[in-house]
Amino acid sequence: MSIRIGILGYGNLGKGVEKAVNANADQELVGVFTRRDPSGVKLATEQAKVYSVDELPNMKDQIDVLIICGGSATDLPKQTPAYASSFNVVDSFDTHANIPVHFAAVNEAAMAGGKVGVISCGWDPGMFSLNRLYAHSILPDGRDYTFWGRGVSQGHSDAIRRIEGVKDARQYTVPVKEALDQVRSGKNPELTTRQKHTRECWVVAEEGADLARIEKEIKEMPNYYADYDTTVNFISEEELKANHSELPHGGSVIYSGKTGDKKHVIEYSLKLDSNPEFTGSVLAAVARAAWRMNQEGRRGAMTMFDIAPKYLSPETDEFLRAHYL
Amino acid sequence: MSIRIGILGYGNLGKGVEKAVNANADQELVGVFTRRDPSGVKLATEQAKVYSVDELPNMKDQIDVLIICGGSATDLPKQTPAYASSFNVVDSFDTHANIPVHFAAVNEAAMAGGKVGVISCGWDPGMFSLNRLYAHSILPDGRDYTFWGRGVSQGHSDAIRRIEGVKDARQYTVPVKEALDQVRSGKNPELTTRQKHTRECWVVAEEGADLARIEKEIKEMPNYYADYDTTVNFISEEELKANHSELPHGGSVIYSGKTGDKKHVIEYSLKLDSNPEFTGSVLAAVARAAWRMNQEGRRGAMTMFDIAPKYLSPETDEFLRAHYL
Repeated sequence: MSIRIGILGYGNLGKGVEKAVNANADQELVGVFTRRDPSGVKLATEQAKVYSVDELPNMKDQIDVLIICGGSATDLPKQTPAYASSFNVVDSFDTHANIPVHFAAVNEAAMAGGKVGVISCGWDPGMFSLNRLYAHSILPDGRDYTFWGRGVSQGHSDAIRRIEGVKDARQYTVPVKEALDQVRSGKNPELTTRQKHTRECWVVAEEGADLARIEKEIKEMPNYYADYDTTVNFISEEELKANHSELPHGGSVIYSGKTGDKKHVIEYSLKLDSNPEFTGSVLAAVARAAWRMNQEGRRGAMTMFDIAPKYLSPETDEFLRAHYL
Repeated sequence: MSIRIGILGYGNLGKGVEKAVNANADQELVGVFTRRDPSGVKLATEQAKVYSVDELPNMKDQIDVLIICGGSATDLPKQTPAYASSFNVVDSFDTHANIPVHFAAVNEAAMAGGKVGVISCGWDPGMFSLNRLYAHSILPDGRDYTFWGRGVSQGHSDAIRRIEGVKDARQYTVPVKEALDQVRSGKNPELTTRQKHTRECWVVAEEGADLARIEKEIKEMPNYYADYDTTVNFISEEELKANHSELPHGGSVIYSGKTGDKKHVIEYSLKLDSNPEFTGSVLAAVARAAWRMNQEGRRGAMTMFDIAPKYLSPETDEFLRAHYL
């Protein structure tokens, strides 16, 4: 019997989850739930239906896990706790400072409803977090470094788009090769924000806009750009579409640790053609785990730290030991 | 209260575990158990004692987890099941074909005694296994490649030492760069054994030995060398000691997967100055997990696939979410 999946939200991430669920032989997409007019949303999956989000409360018996694909700023803090009492839920909440509050809210709802709610899944937070945890647990004397990119940061691209005179933009986060090399060599350098990453911007300006002002506003934007070496390139709309319409990403978690005088370097790295499709694939695997753990009587909020790896796989324990161990 | 650890066997791995336990603030080394005469064994840890293995049955109440550091060929198949009914146990069993039998034997003993027995821990099997499992679970359409080295293979070194006229030897397993590059690029090549690794041998011959015959015997040795491009270098005993007395190792698990037309490459790699010290560090972390899971009422045989990552860490769930998520 398939695990019946619902997707809430049909942006890039929701579409990535849809593709992942369809690639999983043990999962079945029941429907996509949207705040938009359902008649205006066309799915990639023929047999699944588009529903208004208002119909979710009536579909408790038809969905085993609801994967919530909203944004961390305003959607997930409301949605995940709201649905965690009626559904097993999975989200990709990534506003780090607010994780304790979000976890507590989801836990309360999931405990009340006897469901499992897994928050902050994906690759960072998610797979990168797991690698930080495993490495620190194995080698207590050491430190972790996380590098992101080369890849498109949607938050940083959006920040440029909000500047007056900007029509469209794409921002790439790029790790600094010298910093990567130093960390990989086990040198444990102290690195400033500026020394770890650069930011590369591709901007389409409106006709007649003051390019010098736009460039200055980008480079001086606090939090987003001021602490980085930033390059700004103005291009045409056609060029942006032709060369910068994909959403690649990736990065590395490097842990440099010691046992006495012996050095050990652990590196986990990702090179992803599509950030939302890979993230969606993680969410779909976690949905499987959420369902199985709930079937075994588990309830409450969790992160990937709480999930024994075997629950993510559709294979039997015997198969896993025979083929992956 | 510290987790009280016993170590069975004091070879390279046992010494690595000792160092790891001493580096873990929440663990305490009670003693090392040996089949040798205890008076001839000197520990690195002052406060711990050396015992004869015969004293183990009397120390059930003084040891929370017994880390068994014997060999996979003949020691572990007997030792781990024998002690799993009286102690929580951890081993690094790595004879792949015999894992089902070993798992079943440990499970029976551990279930009977109400203990946890975790088998096949370390980096391969162990951390590499976890990475194969996570990757396959996230991206069902893909394949994994495992490369070992550059590092010393003790089994392959021992095989050379058994040849007549050989006084000592060290063998390095070396991954082939072209194969690594192909796999990292996401090309999913079919690779033969010979295409993935080469073998580099450093041999001290006895005086007057027939070097040509030794080289031929190494290169034609079935299973160990015949399927590889092998180079044999004869050196002096002093040179071996000066340049080849360490036990570095490492390698990579590379998973190359797809979501439709998008490619994703996941790589987990290790560069270890000391194979036994890193492996010992994994065993010590798993001992923590075994103890905590047993305290929560879990029993029976497990592998690292069955362990939620948080159990490996000495930190609280709140700390893990705040710092590693």
